[in-house]
Amino acid sequence: MNIPDPQKLSLNTATVRKQWKLAQIIDGCARHGLRGISPWRDQVAELTLKKTRQLIESHGLAVTGLCRGGFFTKDNWLDDNRRAIEEAHVLGARCLVLVVGGLHEKSKDMPRARAAVREGLEKILPEARQAKVPLAIEPLHPMQAADRACVNTLEQALDLCDELGEGVGVAVDAYHVWWDPKLQSQIARAGRERILGYHICDWLVPTRDLLNDRGMMGDGVIDLPRLRSWVEGAGYAGFHEVEIFSDYWWGRDPDEVLKIIRERHPAT
Amino acid sequence: MNIPDPQKLSLNTATVRKQWKLAQIIDGCARHGLRGISPWRDQVAELTLKKTRQLIESHGLAVTGLCRGGFFTKDNWLDDNRRAIEEAHVLGARCLVLVVGGLHEKSKDMPRARAAVREGLEKILPEARQAKVPLAIEPLHPMQAADRACVNTLEQALDLCDELGEGVGVAVDAYHVWWDPKLQSQIARAGRERILGYHICDWLVPTRDLLNDRGMMGDGVIDLPRLRSWVEGAGYAGFHEVEIFSDYWWGRDPDEVLKIIRERHPAT
Repeated sequence: MNIPDPQKLSLNTATVRKQWKLAQIIDGCARHGLRGISPWRDQVAELTLKKTRQLIESHGLAVTGLCRGGFFTKDNWLDDNRRAIEEAHVLGARCLVLVVGGLHEKSKDMPRARAAVREGLEKILPEARQAKVPLAIEPLHPMQAADRACVNTLEQALDLCDELGEGVGVAVDAYHVWWDPKLQSQIARAGRERILGYHICDWLVPTRDLLNDRGMMGDGVIDLPRLRSWVEGAGYAGFHEVEIFSDYWWGRDPDEVLKIIRERHPAT
Repeated sequence: MNIPDPQKLSLNTATVRKQWKLAQIIDGCARHGLRGISPWRDQVAELTLKKTRQLIESHGLAVTGLCRGGFFTKDNWLDDNRRAIEEAHVLGARCLVLVVGGLHEKSKDMPRARAAVREGLEKILPEARQAKVPLAIEPLHPMQAADRACVNTLEQALDLCDELGEGVGVAVDAYHVWWDPKLQSQIARAGRERILGYHICDWLVPTRDLLNDRGMMGDGVIDLPRLRSWVEGAGYAGFHEVEIFSDYWWGRDPDEVLKIIRERHPAT
């Protein structure tokens, strides 16, 4: 396998969100030689959209995604997604990452949730196209189906993309999809057109928490070089965005974390 | 939806394994009017196979499954599965439940694990057929792909069944498959021929542990009546086996647990 291009390393800001504010994270990326960043909207709001844009531009970072829109099964989803599209536009984000939402409150009706997601996507897609903001549906791990996203496989996400047409694709997050027996074929199906982002971290054995026990690349069981070979083999030429939700890594010195990410990247 | 037949309630013995020995569980099932039981092999070994058979027969219980064979990615899988088939035969179990195993030790190679599972199945299937023990592949939740089972969707399990021919089917466990966007179509595909067992419990929100935080039916978000309508609509006419791995329920009086299971069954 070829070595990943070090220029393609990007940081999802959730990875060090407990230690640093967004301005510090932007600065940290630049200092550690990471060329991409994917910020979360609450951090952007805190710093202000204008200042975020200025800082990211002045450091010459690519915005590999904005996290996040979606949650189509919550109240007020339309306004929130409209704001998210506008923010992604202002930041020049390569995509708006969508965590689509789980079951409606007090509901057990998965088909209803999935229908709401499709309808929500149909509604916001014209506005996203107009703003030139590609929408990246992120299939989440099935263990998060109830409360975070009822789109849980790449196949399901790509079926949605086929129904919706242009301007929408997928974010392939190793953590969420690595287990899927149809992963290779669905990545090939997605192709260059539909793969809008590629997120990496690792699956730990044992995993002690359903949300915040992701591993640093190399500490778990995901065959990341093989996965990257499939993603890049499908034509994806974008960034490798590190996104680690982890109580452990949130407890470490963030400069250490970024240093380790750099060190681990070549073996992914 | 129709009410489930109370005569079809079965208990997977893992549900009260921390409180009772197998002899007590068999007795408890009879006292609480449960007509089926699915024991685990370590408990059978402790009580002895002969005594287990005698006790189950004298109480008139159906053996809805024997747990478990599989783990084809571990050393010594062949001998262990041969013994499991023999035990299932002696107990007159309706199927031998297979938890197929995860990654090989120190391996990240999922395709290798999946190939080993297929080869293992091919090897033991003739012996299972001869013993008239149907093999039930149980797709496990993707969060258990690394360490317990690399068969993670019903579609994947049924593809294996198609390759292998007769004598093998699936155990549909609500907990493992409820999230699957292809669930309805794959249950229909499975049909009466392939559905060898139907296991119920519930998915809690939040779920605090990847193994031992399953919910009692009604306490979570799985639409069990709808799922049963699909399973029975596909032709399955067997038992509804309650299997709850839960630190919470293991801490409760087992007579209470069985009473609550009976009370909850009509709404599943």
